[in-house]
Amino acid sequence: MLSFESDYIEGAHPLILDALVKTNMDSQSGYGADKYTESAKKKLADLCGNPDCQIQFLTGGTQTNQLVIDTMLRQFEGVVAAQTGHVSVHEAGAIEYTGRKVLTLPSHDGKIKACELDSFISDFYADGNCEHMVFPGMVYISHPTEYGTLYSKSELEELSSVCRKNNIPLYMDGARLGYALASRNTDVTLKDIASLCDVFYVGGTKVGALCGEAVVFTRKNMPIHFEHLVKKHGALLAKGRLLGVQFDTLFTDDLYLKLGKNAIDRAEELKSLFAEKGCKFFLDSPTNQQFIILENSKIEKLRQKVKFSFWEKYDDSHTVVRFATSWATTSEKIEELRKILSED
Amino acid sequence: MLSFESDYIEGAHPLILDALVKTNMDSQSGYGADKYTESAKKKLADLCGNPDCQIQFLTGGTQTNQLVIDTMLRQFEGVVAAQTGHVSVHEAGAIEYTGRKVLTLPSHDGKIKACELDSFISDFYADGNCEHMVFPGMVYISHPTEYGTLYSKSELEELSSVCRKNNIPLYMDGARLGYALASRNTDVTLKDIASLCDVFYVGGTKVGALCGEAVVFTRKNMPIHFEHLVKKHGALLAKGRLLGVQFDTLFTDDLYLKLGKNAIDRAEELKSLFAEKGCKFFLDSPTNQQFIILENSKIEKLRQKVKFSFWEKYDDSHTVVRFATSWATTSEKIEELRKILSED
Amino acid sequence: MLSFESDYIEGAHPLILDALVKTNMDSQSGYGADKYTESAKKKLADLCGNPDCQIQFLTGGTQTNQLVIDTMLRQFEGVVAAQTGHVSVHEAGAIEYTGRKVLTLPSHDGKIKACELDSFISDFYADGNCEHMVFPGMVYISHPTEYGTLYSKSELEELSSVCRKNNIPLYMDGARLGYALASRNTDVTLKDIASLCDVFYVGGTKVGALCGEAVVFTRKNMPIHFEHLVKKHGALLAKGRLLGVQFDTLFTDDLYLKLGKNAIDRAEELKSLFAEKGCKFFLDSPTNQQFIILENSKIEKLRQKVKFSFWEKYDDSHTVVRFATSWATTSEKIEELRKILSED
Amino acid sequence: MLSFESDYIEGAHPLILDALVKTNMDSQSGYGADKYTESAKKKLADLCGNPDCQIQFLTGGTQTNQLVIDTMLRQFEGVVAAQTGHVSVHEAGAIEYTGRKVLTLPSHDGKIKACELDSFISDFYADGNCEHMVFPGMVYISHPTEYGTLYSKSELEELSSVCRKNNIPLYMDGARLGYALASRNTDVTLKDIASLCDVFYVGGTKVGALCGEAVVFTRKNMPIHFEHLVKKHGALLAKGRLLGVQFDTLFTDDLYLKLGKNAIDRAEELKSLFAEKGCKFFLDSPTNQQFIILENSKIEKLRQKVKFSFWEKYDDSHTVVRFATSWATTSEKIEELRKILSED
Repeated sequence: MLSFESDYIEGAHPLILDALVKTNMDSQSGYGADKYTESAKKKLADLCGNPDCQIQFLTGGTQTNQLVIDTMLRQFEGVVAAQTGHVSVHEAGAIEYTGRKVLTLPSHDGKIKACELDSFISDFYADGNCEHMVFPGMVYISHPTEYGTLYSKSELEELSSVCRKNNIPLYMDGARLGYALASRNTDVTLKDIASLCDVFYVGGTKVGALCGEAVVFTRKNMPIHFEHLVKKHGALLAKGRLLGVQFDTLFTDDLYLKLGKNAIDRAEELKSLFAEKGCKFFLDSPTNQQFIILENSKIEKLRQKVKFSFWEKYDDSHTVVRFATSWATTSEKIEELRKILSED
Repeated sequence: MLSFESDYIEGAHPLILDALVKTNMDSQSGYGADKYTESAKKKLADLCGNPDCQIQFLTGGTQTNQLVIDTMLRQFEGVVAAQTGHVSVHEAGAIEYTGRKVLTLPSHDGKIKACELDSFISDFYADGNCEHMVFPGMVYISHPTEYGTLYSKSELEELSSVCRKNNIPLYMDGARLGYALASRNTDVTLKDIASLCDVFYVGGTKVGALCGEAVVFTRKNMPIHFEHLVKKHGALLAKGRLLGVQFDTLFTDDLYLKLGKNAIDRAEELKSLFAEKGCKFFLDSPTNQQFIILENSKIEKLRQKVKFSFWEKYDDSHTVVRFATSWATTSEKIEELRKILSED
Repeated sequence: MLSFESDYIEGAHPLILDALVKTNMDSQSGYGADKYTESAKKKLADLCGNPDCQIQFLTGGTQTNQLVIDTMLRQFEGVVAAQTGHVSVHEAGAIEYTGRKVLTLPSHDGKIKACELDSFISDFYADGNCEHMVFPGMVYISHPTEYGTLYSKSELEELSSVCRKNNIPLYMDGARLGYALASRNTDVTLKDIASLCDVFYVGGTKVGALCGEAVVFTRKNMPIHFEHLVKKHGALLAKGRLLGVQFDTLFTDDLYLKLGKNAIDRAEELKSLFAEKGCKFFLDSPTNQQFIILENSKIEKLRQKVKFSFWEKYDDSHTVVRFATSWATTSEKIEELRKILSED
Repeated sequence: MLSFESDYIEGAHPLILDALVKTNMDSQSGYGADKYTESAKKKLADLCGNPDCQIQFLTGGTQTNQLVIDTMLRQFEGVVAAQTGHVSVHEAGAIEYTGRKVLTLPSHDGKIKACELDSFISDFYADGNCEHMVFPGMVYISHPTEYGTLYSKSELEELSSVCRKNNIPLYMDGARLGYALASRNTDVTLKDIASLCDVFYVGGTKVGALCGEAVVFTRKNMPIHFEHLVKKHGALLAKGRLLGVQFDTLFTDDLYLKLGKNAIDRAEELKSLFAEKGCKFFLDSPTNQQFIILENSKIEKLRQKVKFSFWEKYDDSHTVVRFATSWATTSEKIEELRKILSED
């Protein structure tokens, strides 16, 4: 069945599979001490414009968020995030599982505001009782956010500035970073991110890899004995080459950005399609996830022919649904959807 | 360079890569709700002779040990293991990280003895102070052990019997299970394991997969909401198909056992080779890991031509080293090693 | 200096000290296996009208909340509380430290509403993605709340009914329970609480003891090996008699209620006093904590003569402050405050 | 019944109760910000000969061990202790509960040896695989040990020297420190301890207080925001004065040492008594705990007239039992025991 259920419904980009096949029988040491991992790290550091950045490849997003947050916070600190942030709501309590509290700020279409962050921190320290509260010790944002929205460069600069003023690391969850970088409505580059964030990750799983996220520590701030900590979290792959080979391919000949661009082009077609059909959008998303408000009765009919995700209740008769494109979405699939939508 | 460093220095068996390529563009839901995962589970349940067993695919061994132990223990319980057990020594504290204590028994070439386990448990309950100690709540064994040794069927039966008498689950770490099952000196089958253990895992990473371990709960004893718990541990892959496709291949046409057999055949050749050269073995290992006692001076020379692992100090002038074969080791590599050893 | 800073600024009621002196040299076993603890448990069970309830004495409030929540939740569950709840804000992350998430509901003068709780739970299970979220596994309320307010009997019945319908325990933090029971505006008795809640605690520290909280499990639902769990949390006193003797005294001749009544009588005098002076109350509190909105300039002058607590910013020129009475507050102190307030 | 069950079977020294009564109605701020706590800290710093040491009063021993170890270790570290150490065996897993592994060394009558510690640490770093093991990050000793034995000054110096060479803090559990300092066979003073250890605690609960342990950080090494961390562990008393008043009394006019001396004097009498009766000692303990090997049949008879503790099985017909004296043991009680022993 036609599916826009998510951006992880297919395997990997064929060039990645080719590379896995080609390198398969080459004997390499485990745990990331292989030459493909080394090469991928070098390419990513170059793309970041920061040869000194420290990189670790991990397997999945929850694992990455849990590990980065847990290992960078001090014992009296928690992580600040939007109320709708992935780590606040949809990580099955993985952050709290490691003993860390998520401190929430209001969400503005999935984003947080620098001025609200600033007030939150200064109010915290102004509170005479602050020793009995959890200290803000890191700021978590995602780009794109849970709602597909993007920070502008100036918004990022402001957040970064508040964080640095308060000596708190800014962490960007880039599970879908490829779709942010390829958006038609962004002025934020990978180099900007590497310069403004203290740590971030470049998502592979949702942008064409079988699995894999590339964590970048931009300021020589990788926690010491990080390999040990990765292992302690159950996150160290024996065959680190699996991640190395994949990212080495993604970071060759701009493949990562090309995959992003395909998803964006298809998302724009999908937007036009829904707009033509008179559908209302829940918000204006410039990336590969599109949130559409549909009548519940309409949804029932539609889901018999196409897969998509329920997002949240809108009102008693409407629901917000999500259609996601990806590196693998073809124009043919968009046309197929057009036919289905026209049938009614 | 020629390498016997470990059993995870190559990629995956070619049939696995073929299957990944072939299924690549098929759209499937995430998180293990794909048809390949379903098929692989069915095949494994059949091999276990237990259609009712519950199966979850995970990514790596530490992750699996951490998750199984943490989710099956009650809050007042710890896990009993050999002093040399992987979870006691080489998991970077991953078990304790989740709040669980490892209670240790003496190691007999890597194994524990049923009679010592029985005494340990009865002494525990006889101690008037036992409320101030950690209760034995699970027994961890590995098969093969850290030293490549194997439990006999009667040894497993005795351990299982002590566990069931005390209502404590018996958990087998099968990171290298393929090499146990294919050993020339074993009377233990997969069906025996599925019948005698309460939970165990079939290792993929070290037996021909890119990554992946298949956890089997044999007595309808998978913890409830296990998918949530997997996610909470950061262990849930978005593209569950990556594991499903691989295990579906391994469990087709006895591939898993064939891969085990290749490693065993090569290991026997390797044993003969070292024996011919007059080397002493640290112990008699019937599986793919061979532990040899070498003079330190000899080691220095040898490592310039072949990779292997340091295991532990033997005495001031000797060290125990490990040579591992795998599904990917060829007879040509053994011959190459013969030449190197003959050069001295 | 005159102080209304909190209800824990003095030692203990003299009868408690008398009892400690009188029983001092009597040899008793440790860890709560003493006759005073036994006697206190029996008296409290009688007051609860539930001879089968299970009781454990602990030292402090954060410890009690942490221990009860951590030991009663299952691994996939979190605790639901008001956004302003003590466990949400002022426990220094003690709940998350044990791996548990606090799920928040809107606060209505510190209280949560049964209908909102009901919707929260049913919306949770209606969400297709609920396996990726933390399950509601317990409901936390405090009585009095952080704002001194009280649940009515019908409100408690409704909450209890929603909880039982969903098979989720209702937990009441009674750090100041004595002041709730003695309020002039309550229809809730200790027997009601013991009947409607699944677990609650009777606070000693803030109601006349040197330290101590009495946890009551009302439905044979004390977690097994609870003494072990108390010890594991670092919460088991060697000299359990210290808690036993104190609670035995508090539960003799209605002392606990008498101490509550004194605080309430003084709080009513204090309310009248502030009302006479034309001060505005932040809300109408029927217990021993009174929240008053004062001009910032006024506060500066006042704090030179009397101690009280800053609560929260009201607007740019006003602040909410808290005046607390207790079992130890005398009418003379209220008169002293009257004089100070009249000086301006 | 006559009892030598432990050193925490009575309440508190009468001077402590007097002080609690005398200071009872004085209004003081909570959480340790009272004048008694301040005074007690100053007195203890003076006794330590280190005006710069940082002190925190806590309630009990397990809590103290858990908090000190958890807050001083870094994430990749565990604590080294004797195999028989209290934190290894009798803390109900409280150390592991906070995610920390206990790394064990052989016990020599309860003590560890500096040379073995040194080898342990150097072997650890010599192991090529050490990133997969838990790093030694603190050394835990107790003084007296679980078997009542004491470190000599030179033994302490050697341990301290190994620790400082490796930049690892040395932590002394002084639950019974008063009985160590007052022993007739010790050359170790409180000032020595404050100079050789990086952190230690002076036990109150077992040396005459109702409850309380005084943690001393000797090198400006108290973890930052320690009050927050104490609260996060559920270990912060609202009425910190309870601990302040008690320690202020114990540290006045050498009361702490006097209480120690009484226990030692009685222990020497008890030793003579058992020696006269021809009983064998399990080891030679110079402090208040005496370990005696008794025939099982003898034990059955004796326990009908006097309470003592079972320690461990000696052989099939003998058991090691413990008799403990304390600050509260009178010569009359020793005489009473003499009569009981003579009855046989």
